[in-house]
Amino acid sequence: MNSCSRETLQEQEKTIGIGWRMIDTMRPQILVTNDDGIFAEGLTALRDALSAVGEVTVVAPERPRSASGHAITLHKPLRMERVRMPWGGEGYAASGTPSDCVVLGIYSLMPHCDLVVSGINLGPNLGEDLTYSGTVSAAMEGAICGRPAIAVSVADYEKPDYGFPARFAAKLARQVLDHGLPPDIVLNVNVPNLPEEEIMGVAITRQGKRRYEGRVERRQDPRGRDYYWLGGEVIQDIDGEHSDGEAVREGRISVTPIHLDLTSYAVAKTLEQWEL
Amino acid sequence: MNSCSRETLQEQEKTIGIGWRMIDTMRPQILVTNDDGIFAEGLTALRDALSAVGEVTVVAPERPRSASGHAITLHKPLRMERVRMPWGGEGYAASGTPSDCVVLGIYSLMPHCDLVVSGINLGPNLGEDLTYSGTVSAAMEGAICGRPAIAVSVADYEKPDYGFPARFAAKLARQVLDHGLPPDIVLNVNVPNLPEEEIMGVAITRQGKRRYEGRVERRQDPRGRDYYWLGGEVIQDIDGEHSDGEAVREGRISVTPIHLDLTSYAVAKTLEQWEL
Repeated sequence: MNSCSRETLQEQEKTIGIGWRMIDTMRPQILVTNDDGIFAEGLTALRDALSAVGEVTVVAPERPRSASGHAITLHKPLRMERVRMPWGGEGYAASGTPSDCVVLGIYSLMPHCDLVVSGINLGPNLGEDLTYSGTVSAAMEGAICGRPAIAVSVADYEKPDYGFPARFAAKLARQVLDHGLPPDIVLNVNVPNLPEEEIMGVAITRQGKRRYEGRVERRQDPRGRDYYWLGGEVIQDIDGEHSDGEAVREGRISVTPIHLDLTSYAVAKTLEQWEL
Repeated sequence: MNSCSRETLQEQEKTIGIGWRMIDTMRPQILVTNDDGIFAEGLTALRDALSAVGEVTVVAPERPRSASGHAITLHKPLRMERVRMPWGGEGYAASGTPSDCVVLGIYSLMPHCDLVVSGINLGPNLGEDLTYSGTVSAAMEGAICGRPAIAVSVADYEKPDYGFPARFAAKLARQVLDHGLPPDIVLNVNVPNLPEEEIMGVAITRQGKRRYEGRVERRQDPRGRDYYWLGGEVIQDIDGEHSDGEAVREGRISVTPIHLDLTSYAVAKTLEQWEL
């Protein structure tokens, strides 16, 4: 901290020192995280693109935390260290989950936070899969902390091109900072892994359905004991119209507004009739 | 398996052998799990109460997995072993998350599954906390697998009495088996930790809001390095009317129907106006 104080004064309080960094507090403050970990290419691509929009602070898991859901670490303390990111830039690597990174960033690192952006995830976050997603959960944590939030995924596991998804994330971030978002709303973005000229536009979608077949595979280890792999094949065609999955299959960018209120108000009325 | 075959025939196919157990397939098949782990008192209380309603199969994490969110284990194989539960009964202890346990139970252990019940959780699952909850996520996994599902929590961490919550869970389970639930719906139940005669009835509620103050505490280890505890105090009064939290504070059992579709249809309309 001390090494930064002199510059802070010289900059007439437009910049402040956060640990080892000087940041311009007049610009929008953006927290960037992911669930693929601090060493992921998509994280640096997102950071670089958002640096044109505001001051970016990166706090990401020190190791991949895919499918970590909305886990938060309460039973053990966390570590957080400044690191050089292999794909470029510097950030904080934390020992916890993506949601932990958001809480750490907002409450212990940033002077204020205007926007949380999570990604760019390697692979889609579509349909009910998004409840498993560390990427989406990190954005949900941003919303719980009262910040507008975006989750960005490139909808392919093979040879992802992060360039266009990162530029789209920056464009969307500008719109979110301009328009704002209602409280408790997260934008879940899935970008098809196509060259920019083949992208068929943007679709505002609803969360689709995504079901699996053959979800458990039992095997035997060399000592004859059973073990189990979870997985299974996606059954895509129950997805329905205007869904996130449909948009991506049609080559469009899917933007789904999701909220934190899981209540089914329709079913609540039905339950009133039960004898409880 | 083999040791069960003879009895199966004798029982004229009303019972079948699942590994080491005989189960009566004419009764409702209920999968019970939790996030406090196979050794938790609340798990056995739930199992015992539901045994009056149907055939119960217990599959629970081998160690506590609180706040694990909707995590699922795809990157490593899982183990599952038959164990004697310290509070009574037998069940399967799995190396994964609560959601993993549900997938393992439904797809590798049970002949069919009519209902998933998760709990009884030690401590409340209210407001936006339920997105962190392993208990609720396990029930959501049940819904994703196409089964009606219930999550049950006793809304106190101190001296929980599982007796009444377990009996209420059994009553609710009967109603769910009788009436059914619409697809993709989970009932999230929070029972006040009060003597039965002080319970003020049942409220069908909506998910409330639950926000925290002071969420990060920084400390230094004996070697002078920083570490961080997440936590913070609940700010309760933003909860609102007809919320889960309000019901519990008033001494009522809260039953909130929640669904898997996180789409905010209202905000989708707004986003159509943006320039994307």
